[in-house]
Amino acid sequence: MKKIIFLGAVLIANTVSAQFTTQDSSFIAKIYNKALTEGQCYENLRDLCKNVGARLSGSPQAQKAVEWGINKVKSAGLVVSTQDIMVPNWKRGSIEKVELQFDKDPKIYFPLDAKSLGGSIGKGATKPIIAEVIELKSLDELAKLGKEKIKGKIVFFNRPMDPSHLHVFNAYGGAVDQRSKGPMDATAYGAVAVVVRSMTLSNDEYPHTGSARINAGDTICPALAISTKSADELSAKLKLGPQKLRIFSDSNWEQEVPSKNVLGTLKADNLNLISVGGHLDSWDVGEGAHDDGAGIVQSLEAIRILKDLGYKPKNNLRCVFWMNEENGLRGGKAYREQTLAEKNVHIAAIESDGGGFTPRGFSIGTKDEIALKRIMSFKTLLEPYGLHSWHKGWGGADTSPLEADGVTCLELSPDSQRYFDLHHTDKDVFESVNKRELELGAAALAATIYLIDQYGLK
Amino acid sequence: MKKIIFLGAVLIANTVSAQFTTQDSSFIAKIYNKALTEGQCYENLRDLCKNVGARLSGSPQAQKAVEWGINKVKSAGLVVSTQDIMVPNWKRGSIEKVELQFDKDPKIYFPLDAKSLGGSIGKGATKPIIAEVIELKSLDELAKLGKEKIKGKIVFFNRPMDPSHLHVFNAYGGAVDQRSKGPMDATAYGAVAVVVRSMTLSNDEYPHTGSARINAGDTICPALAISTKSADELSAKLKLGPQKLRIFSDSNWEQEVPSKNVLGTLKADNLNLISVGGHLDSWDVGEGAHDDGAGIVQSLEAIRILKDLGYKPKNNLRCVFWMNEENGLRGGKAYREQTLAEKNVHIAAIESDGGGFTPRGFSIGTKDEIALKRIMSFKTLLEPYGLHSWHKGWGGADTSPLEADGVTCLELSPDSQRYFDLHHTDKDVFESVNKRELELGAAALAATIYLIDQYGLK
Repeated sequence: MKKIIFLGAVLIANTVSAQFTTQDSSFIAKIYNKALTEGQCYENLRDLCKNVGARLSGSPQAQKAVEWGINKVKSAGLVVSTQDIMVPNWKRGSIEKVELQFDKDPKIYFPLDAKSLGGSIGKGATKPIIAEVIELKSLDELAKLGKEKIKGKIVFFNRPMDPSHLHVFNAYGGAVDQRSKGPMDATAYGAVAVVVRSMTLSNDEYPHTGSARINAGDTICPALAISTKSADELSAKLKLGPQKLRIFSDSNWEQEVPSKNVLGTLKADNLNLISVGGHLDSWDVGEGAHDDGAGIVQSLEAIRILKDLGYKPKNNLRCVFWMNEENGLRGGKAYREQTLAEKNVHIAAIESDGGGFTPRGFSIGTKDEIALKRIMSFKTLLEPYGLHSWHKGWGGADTSPLEADGVTCLELSPDSQRYFDLHHTDKDVFESVNKRELELGAAALAATIYLIDQYGLK
Repeated sequence: MKKIIFLGAVLIANTVSAQFTTQDSSFIAKIYNKALTEGQCYENLRDLCKNVGARLSGSPQAQKAVEWGINKVKSAGLVVSTQDIMVPNWKRGSIEKVELQFDKDPKIYFPLDAKSLGGSIGKGATKPIIAEVIELKSLDELAKLGKEKIKGKIVFFNRPMDPSHLHVFNAYGGAVDQRSKGPMDATAYGAVAVVVRSMTLSNDEYPHTGSARINAGDTICPALAISTKSADELSAKLKLGPQKLRIFSDSNWEQEVPSKNVLGTLKADNLNLISVGGHLDSWDVGEGAHDDGAGIVQSLEAIRILKDLGYKPKNNLRCVFWMNEENGLRGGKAYREQTLAEKNVHIAAIESDGGGFTPRGFSIGTKDEIALKRIMSFKTLLEPYGLHSWHKGWGGADTSPLEADGVTCLELSPDSQRYFDLHHTDKDVFESVNKRELELGAAALAATIYLIDQYGLK
């Protein structure tokens, strides 16, 4: 009996694991060679960063990025198409200041390093908020203090990301509620403004913006991030006694505007589809190089390499430049609608949105155990390329509407230790991306797409 | 018969693999936690880079680095000792210029980005070499052309590092003979100077210095590195016709001077020894941050963490700051002599000299199959920390005299894609090192030392 069970397990394992050939190994070697010796993604990223720049949804730069995307897809010889969407349109104001009142002379204020959080609704350029600041470590603490103690105050969320996490995304996940939920919650308790410690493990002067999950029309107090150095400075001052902040902020929401997803397809003779993409929008700081210019140029490069190697796909292979990941996910949601409407059978959807660093594997978002095991069997072929880490987990943001429909989604996992040094800051520029690390990511995507296309996930 | 063989194999495997306990897992978790939350190596590196700086063997800065090392080892509460050595003493001159003569007016020269190679012997600040330049791709090509065609010329070695290598050290290994052997060989064929394309996969303006393996007293022409951009520019010009270069160089050798290795030991009650180290000297450019300030502070941190966790080692655990890796290996050679003289039984020697990037595993230099398999079995415990790559290979430079004696040597393998962007250049500064990546390297060393100390290698 035991023996029979054992043989059964072996048979299942054989069906689930792809039966690789030397042709596979040889083709994957060609993919890597092309990426590393004739790569185009690095120069494409330079072009996006330097000639388009930061490109928040709704901005003229985002519109320019759409045109950039259409041209790049055409140049790569792929079939270009676009998808019309409406995007939210938040504008950073002309002023964003957080200042600490000098205790010996209330007319003197010392500036802290500050940036409005995405979605924050300001009071206008000439209307400062001056109020006492209260330092909190969590939303629970806020709830415990309640309306009585919060009303009229500026709430300062100052729980650092926990450096003991090996994976910085876990450290981020453990702290980001202060930014994403803090402003709404604090407003409900009567806060007049919210200041949040930047989401980073670095100790520096850079405030990190990011979505405060505030929508147009919400009644909410202004919300700003301050740098970790400023947060430590403010916290130290608060140990000496009560402190007041003066805040200027005139960010606001404007009318939604039309925008587009950009798609580039290497066609097959059926309705099956493997998608790979990143998001074309970025925050309105830096150049959106790692977040997510890298994912854009890598996705295009992955499909271009397969095409230029003369690969004839079994399924349609498509790079997708999603619009509006940062503050709405409108592109990702619309893309799901379109593929449903067009009756595509989505074999898999892959995202690259973890920065253009050395790839270490894939995180696989699926409930399908066969698909999971099939993808994990790719490790055999791809481990020699440094892709050691294949695990069930997060399947991506823009792909999440597809994942909710049961599509197997994959997120490229790069080495992320440096990611939150620059995430959503002025430091996220082209120069922070290494050419080879970026190219290795593109090759990892192309190789994985090739294997999914060859072996399917059923 | 088959079954018996199979069982035999299992038994051998069981003896070779360490039998880990939950205590091991828990202690390794403590090591990582300490490194990431109470780490000292990053601030130590800042201190070394900013307050000592570049520290070529024989320079006053190298002497200052020795004092710095002694103080740091003492502060960490380890038993400090030093070892006297004599080191070679090469001095970069006050002038190092490679200039391209303008073909329309021989009195006009355009500068290229240049730095003398380590060991290069110049002609004096006021004595330029002006001669026709000949571009070669290899030492073979040089030999084929022979004395007749080389005599009186400036030889320009311009074979780029091959980007198709996944591992940049292999790309380096495939090109570095032009720098390390080229000047000597070209001199033998009558060249009046040698110019070498910088050892990097980047396309930029930074010349990379490094050892030309020239010794004091050698009769040899001046040898300089030029940046990859300058190399491409010169090569393009040479396609249009013969070109002349003007070279100024007055580097030279001075008298050898005394220097020291610095050792910090966490004592055990026997003569057994596990060493871990990096090299304290650097080239005289940048700040020697990755090469090899990182290895220095990580080695100290590894032993400090074990000590501060209250660990009582079975063997003496020692961090070693070797002097003169870059242009002599005097420290590494002397260290071998000392441990022999002191009758230490060297269990293992570990080096960190691949840059302070995210660690990915260890390269193991050994002829002892049991030691190899024992170390490879550590992967089980350390893979969750991102240490996936455990393989037989390079065991380190400063440890190589020990390896030649049969000591098992390990080299920490960090993610090296960015390494040759800054290797031996002005860019190798503190700011190019990421705190967490550095700390993870220190933890990887401490965890591996702990396992070797616990389980031995026999």
